[in-house]
Amino acid sequence: VSALVLTMGEPAGIGGEITLKAWLRRGEQLPEFFVVDDADRLQAIADALGMAVPVIRVTDPALAGEVFSSALPVLHQAMTRPVHPGAPDAANAPGVIGSIETAVSLTLSGHARGVVTNPIHKKTLYAAGFRHPGHTEFLAHLAGDGITPVMMLVGPELRVIPVTVHVPLADAINALSTYAIVRAGVIADAALRRDFGLASPRLAVAGLNPHAGEEKTIGGEDGELIAPAVAALRDQGIDAFGPLSPDTMFSPRSRRLYDAALCMYHDQALIPLKTLDVDGGVNVTLGLPFVRTSPDHGTAFDIAGQGIANENSLISALRLADALARRRAVGFT
Amino acid sequence: VSALVLTMGEPAGIGGEITLKAWLRRGEQLPEFFVVDDADRLQAIADALGMAVPVIRVTDPALAGEVFSSALPVLHQAMTRPVHPGAPDAANAPGVIGSIETAVSLTLSGHARGVVTNPIHKKTLYAAGFRHPGHTEFLAHLAGDGITPVMMLVGPELRVIPVTVHVPLADAINALSTYAIVRAGVIADAALRRDFGLASPRLAVAGLNPHAGEEKTIGGEDGELIAPAVAALRDQGIDAFGPLSPDTMFSPRSRRLYDAALCMYHDQALIPLKTLDVDGGVNVTLGLPFVRTSPDHGTAFDIAGQGIANENSLISALRLADALARRRAVGFT
Repeated sequence: VSALVLTMGEPAGIGGEITLKAWLRRGEQLPEFFVVDDADRLQAIADALGMAVPVIRVTDPALAGEVFSSALPVLHQAMTRPVHPGAPDAANAPGVIGSIETAVSLTLSGHARGVVTNPIHKKTLYAAGFRHPGHTEFLAHLAGDGITPVMMLVGPELRVIPVTVHVPLADAINALSTYAIVRAGVIADAALRRDFGLASPRLAVAGLNPHAGEEKTIGGEDGELIAPAVAALRDQGIDAFGPLSPDTMFSPRSRRLYDAALCMYHDQALIPLKTLDVDGGVNVTLGLPFVRTSPDHGTAFDIAGQGIANENSLISALRLADALARRRAVGFT
Repeated sequence: VSALVLTMGEPAGIGGEITLKAWLRRGEQLPEFFVVDDADRLQAIADALGMAVPVIRVTDPALAGEVFSSALPVLHQAMTRPVHPGAPDAANAPGVIGSIETAVSLTLSGHARGVVTNPIHKKTLYAAGFRHPGHTEFLAHLAGDGITPVMMLVGPELRVIPVTVHVPLADAINALSTYAIVRAGVIADAALRRDFGLASPRLAVAGLNPHAGEEKTIGGEDGELIAPAVAALRDQGIDAFGPLSPDTMFSPRSRRLYDAALCMYHDQALIPLKTLDVDGGVNVTLGLPFVRTSPDHGTAFDIAGQGIANENSLISALRLADALARRRAVGFT
């Protein structure tokens, strides 16, 4: 039985620290995992922060589960240059990217149960020649041609799916299309059935404009682009409804009426999620041929190296990856 | 001592019902108020819904306070046509508008302590020739030339100020300017000092793009328009900071660090507020020469006439208007 694989993420960020902290909480029903990272740097962080974590190098991922209870298993990948917390170095970007590539490769070949990723810092990767719009798109690229990844953020009370992601807000509006909404809805519906075990997922579709256009008096996209997408999803037998007024659809009463909210732009999805809870949110990529989750925060350079980073979101990401992988293992792939 | 004045709002909506329900809770430290509405229609709603509310006509607002404990005081304004819950009629628009005009006039002349408005339905008013972008802009127009109203939404845990309001999202982005942000910040700062009694209000300024532009890799407005506005506000001695990443600034931890959030568009402000609480939010107009609050919900045609509308937001609006009016009365105007 294989373990989950956790990537290094940006080494100048808090990824190493939260990885070590998560392992220390292995007794709290945490699934077994191993890390693709520089074993020496992880041991150095543990020592510097006074964390009693024995880091052990493994060369065969199949052994990770065996050692997990007594040491943090690491598939060693040496850093190019020494890491300074808070100061990312493009010279180490190949290691960051390599860790992701190795994790995906091991998962696709059945040597890991699913991928959990630590946060990366895109600007540093761009400086080293990385050319993908983001982490998720890179994972989709590694997974193969023709794959459309869909990001879902999962919190204790809310699941949200941004149809457009890390683009300027004006570009998100311009890029919005009925096709993109329908595609995200179809992928979300399938994933909620297969991976989350929902028999008939209810998808709430957000409007774009204030009050979802208020009967077409405040903008046209709600009626012209979003309403047809809802109709198309319903024609396919998917329980989608909307467009809903974005401001009221996340209220305590409203969010009980659906399993996931399809949102038109990044912050329409992320604001309600993080308003409710910033620590335990998990980023899940739907539509990939493997399970992938990640914490929903960034590299947090401002607090890197201080020992104060919060590992709750990573722990939630590991637990959710475990649950999804279990369901995939018994269902169809 | 005068009372607060409450407007009719759209008569086919829930305004009448929540007004009656609020009066029934007058024992819960509710400030005295009178309504500018059709007394017969209010009595008919009370009777139809089995609410023991004696509606009494007053012709002199000064008498409202005396009768408030035993009856709901109404400055009578007859409807043009019978009202059907859920079905607004443009023929009654002059009454809706007249109620607002009377309320403002009485407040400006010192016959009422402040204005609390029930929700209106703009589309119906537009059909009758109303030409103002919204309720708030109409109130500013009535207050006099050269007044810039600034909308603030107040919830139990959060105050938010949208710099742009009821416009399509694409237009909000195009209309965003350093000047508009600074103007809203200056008015908000002054109002928070004068009406809310804060000695040095802390204003969190939101970014526009995901991650506030993520170091200029996701859109330029954050650095080009918003950052200069923050600098200009600070130059004026106002404790503004930002632009902040919109998704994380409303988290439980982050929102403790400021007194109000200056938001770039309607839903950036309204989503976090209503995610936390949809019933008790209050809309306050800053920058007017009188106190004005309103519930933060709409006309709710779908439930009008059924007796199930929730009066909590109206009650919060009445209480907040009372608190603001008290502070204005002892301070400078």
